Amino acid sequence: MKAHLLTIGDELLLGQTTNTNAAWLGEELSLLGIRVTRTVVVGDDAAAIRRELDRAYEEASLVITTGGLGPTHDDVTKTVVADYFDRPLRVDDRLRAQIEATYRRRDRDLPAEVAALAQIPEGFDILDNPVGTAPGLWYDAPSPTDRTRLLAVLPGVPQEMKNIVRASLRPKLRDRPGLRDVTHRTLQTTGIGESDLQATVGDLSDLLDAKLQLAYLPSTSGVRLRLTAYHADPDRAEARLDALEERLRDRAGRYIFGTGTDTLEEVLGTLLRRRSLTLATAESATGGLVGSRITDVPGSSDYYVGGAVTYAYSAKEDLVDVPHEMLMEGGAVCEPVAVQMARGVRRALGAHIGVSTTGVAGPTGGSDDKPVGTVWIGFAFHPDPDAEDSDADDPDAEERTYARRLQFVEDRQLNKELFATSALEMVRRQVLRTETSTADSPR
Amino acid sequence: MKAHLLTIGDELLLGQTTNTNAAWLGEELSLLGIRVTRTVVVGDDAAAIRRELDRAYEEASLVITTGGLGPTHDDVTKTVVADYFDRPLRVDDRLRAQIEATYRRRDRDLPAEVAALAQIPEGFDILDNPVGTAPGLWYDAPSPTDRTRLLAVLPGVPQEMKNIVRASLRPKLRDRPGLRDVTHRTLQTTGIGESDLQATVGDLSDLLDAKLQLAYLPSTSGVRLRLTAYHADPDRAEARLDALEERLRDRAGRYIFGTGTDTLEEVLGTLLRRRSLTLATAESATGGLVGSRITDVPGSSDYYVGGAVTYAYSAKEDLVDVPHEMLMEGGAVCEPVAVQMARGVRRALGAHIGVSTTGVAGPTGGSDDKPVGTVWIGFAFHPDPDAEDSDADDPDAEERTYARRLQFVEDRQLNKELFATSALEMVRRQVLRTETSTADSPR
Repeated sequence: MKAHLLTIGDELLLGQTTNTNAAWLGEELSLLGIRVTRTVVVGDDAAAIRRELDRAYEEASLVITTGGLGPTHDDVTKTVVADYFDRPLRVDDRLRAQIEATYRRRDRDLPAEVAALAQIPEGFDILDNPVGTAPGLWYDAPSPTDRTRLLAVLPGVPQEMKNIVRASLRPKLRDRPGLRDVTHRTLQTTGIGESDLQATVGDLSDLLDAKLQLAYLPSTSGVRLRLTAYHADPDRAEARLDALEERLRDRAGRYIFGTGTDTLEEVLGTLLRRRSLTLATAESATGGLVGSRITDVPGSSDYYVGGAVTYAYSAKEDLVDVPHEMLMEGGAVCEPVAVQMARGVRRALGAHIGVSTTGVAGPTGGSDDKPVGTVWIGFAFHPDPDAEDSDADDPDAEERTYARRLQFVEDRQLNKELFATSALEMVRRQVLRTETSTADSPR
Repeated sequence: MKAHLLTIGDELLLGQTTNTNAAWLGEELSLLGIRVTRTVVVGDDAAAIRRELDRAYEEASLVITTGGLGPTHDDVTKTVVADYFDRPLRVDDRLRAQIEATYRRRDRDLPAEVAALAQIPEGFDILDNPVGTAPGLWYDAPSPTDRTRLLAVLPGVPQEMKNIVRASLRPKLRDRPGLRDVTHRTLQTTGIGESDLQATVGDLSDLLDAKLQLAYLPSTSGVRLRLTAYHADPDRAEARLDALEERLRDRAGRYIFGTGTDTLEEVLGTLLRRRSLTLATAESATGGLVGSRITDVPGSSDYYVGGAVTYAYSAKEDLVDVPHEMLMEGGAVCEPVAVQMARGVRRALGAHIGVSTTGVAGPTGGSDDKPVGTVWIGFAFHPDPDAEDSDADDPDAEERTYARRLQFVEDRQLNKELFATSALEMVRRQVLRTETSTADSPR
């Protein structure tokens, strides 16, 4: 089934509020197999809402509105939809009693608008609102033609909207036959750009057609691959998605780090936990962003020890033992400094792995041989982080280090994100390459 | 002038991506005096895009599209707009050279689609893209009638879109006469919630009316106050905004840290640079986010030395000298640990100021006396950061320390942001309180 979303509110147009409701509903509906094919945002304006309802029902069977349902004078949605379907507004006694009870429970005076709040268009169903006063509304409009015209009217406050959908709208839609016509799957890649990824994946024309599609969705943490199958039969959909996923993994598997809504930092965290490895960070160009992303994941204290933000030369010397001469010789952005930062922080914090970033985020600081966007990512690994303290002849023999230079863009913010993603991805790949399981080593 | 936004991309409809571009553009345009009256999201579907262009020009003079501009087969925007305005696609040699140079600079092979990427519709202007390969496009369509039909075509990746708007589209729009019918001003506050701020500001009914409005816009870095005057006469608008701003500063001035798009980290940076003070960070709960925000500001190396991410107990002991017994006694989230982290990192890095965060971001780790959302922010200041090395009898006598406990919410991500904002704000307030000017002290 096709659906259109009609989100109503001046604050959305002015950019005071980001339209998170549309994204949430889009995902919710697509998991029910309903395709949102268009979303419109208009102000609290009756004529505009009527016009958009007309346009929506030209194409879609289901229209969901959000916003404009409160008691204030600029909330016009209920009046407009009643009028649109030619249904008179009537006070609903049960709803009125509920609203009065809510106000009593919160110890607030009943507003003058209680009668208006308790009105619903005749023939509409109430979608109970467990967390607010304005309920949602549902209408299955008798159509002069054979066309289905379904309407859900929801409040704009995200918490209320979501509660109504979960409690009342989702069951109503799920029980309706003939709903499903789309199935999705997502593969997350990183470390490769959109064009290069397409070249790596190559020709898929033997697999793709109108009912099986692939989309490339780039962001600062990588390119997501979205696989979509349009089949009413879920088994058929899954089988075709399986075939496509197999091909993608076969050709571009090393760039694929996860599925669904996995993040790189989550996947890395799971990998480190499984191998009982600990990680420390030394950040110059990223200023703490790598550590911040790692600690976005709940439970990251299981594998993340901490790190050093070595922004000034002196901090590189004081915290991660970069020799003064090394900095004087090659500057902060070079291979030996990246390696020593990773090694130094690993040792200072007694972790298995150290990872470092040193680069030119911009807008200034670039030079001919190190333009803005240059970064060195350093990596150090030791199977026994406490080895330095041991009596072995050469405790460093087992330490493995690596560094890589990458070149990104001119934008400071974007560079910081891309540098951080590269650091996380380097750790993921290096750990995958590490055959030695340290699962038995003490933590 | 009225504008419609046409945001293109299946991922927006599916809810895989939230439409932040629409909010950002809505705000950006309203600051230029342009009103966005409708936003539409459709998939990468030529017929749908054509239909929405028709609908948009019925009402609006300016249409801005985002998305569908990349090199992949599902990116159809450029072809559709060329066809819509009946302009043939031609390879632009300058653009082709630019794209080739970008690939060379990044040491990548030219994609097969370079010719397609370098095509633009005849008569369209290029809006330079400083951070990506696909440029924006601009068209001032000759209309059969007297109606203005302006079109800006922008990529969907937010960083690219924003850079193009700032560098190329904003100047183009700003220079156009007859644009403005609204004037905005923004005051940035932090350290106070929306309701408390409203109570502090109090009654403004003697100032506000239909033509002078005030909106409270909460975010994780504070509550923005947006002042809006609807007057065609700019002098009248400015005079009314001046009166409102004066009242707001009079009543809530200590919470106001900046204006316009100032960020707290920028304002703090300017303050530190002016006073020749240096800063170091010790982060536990924020995992590096404070350092990352400080270094979002170009030139932050003038005052930011670096920091320690002391996530594990051992990192607190190793990097910022928190005594083991202190951790055993009160845990990591307590006043003495916060103070020692700030003091320890200040000393380790030889900075005037140390600031620290230690708290419970959640979702786990909370307890009855330290529930999720609890944070201690620590602060340490010494007018002479190298004093410890001097021969003075008690070099610590001049050190000033302070810590404060705050309580935020249940959400991990939100807590990290709010903790980081609180740390930055504590440094700002403490520095403002520091009468001693160290402007003459050596760095």
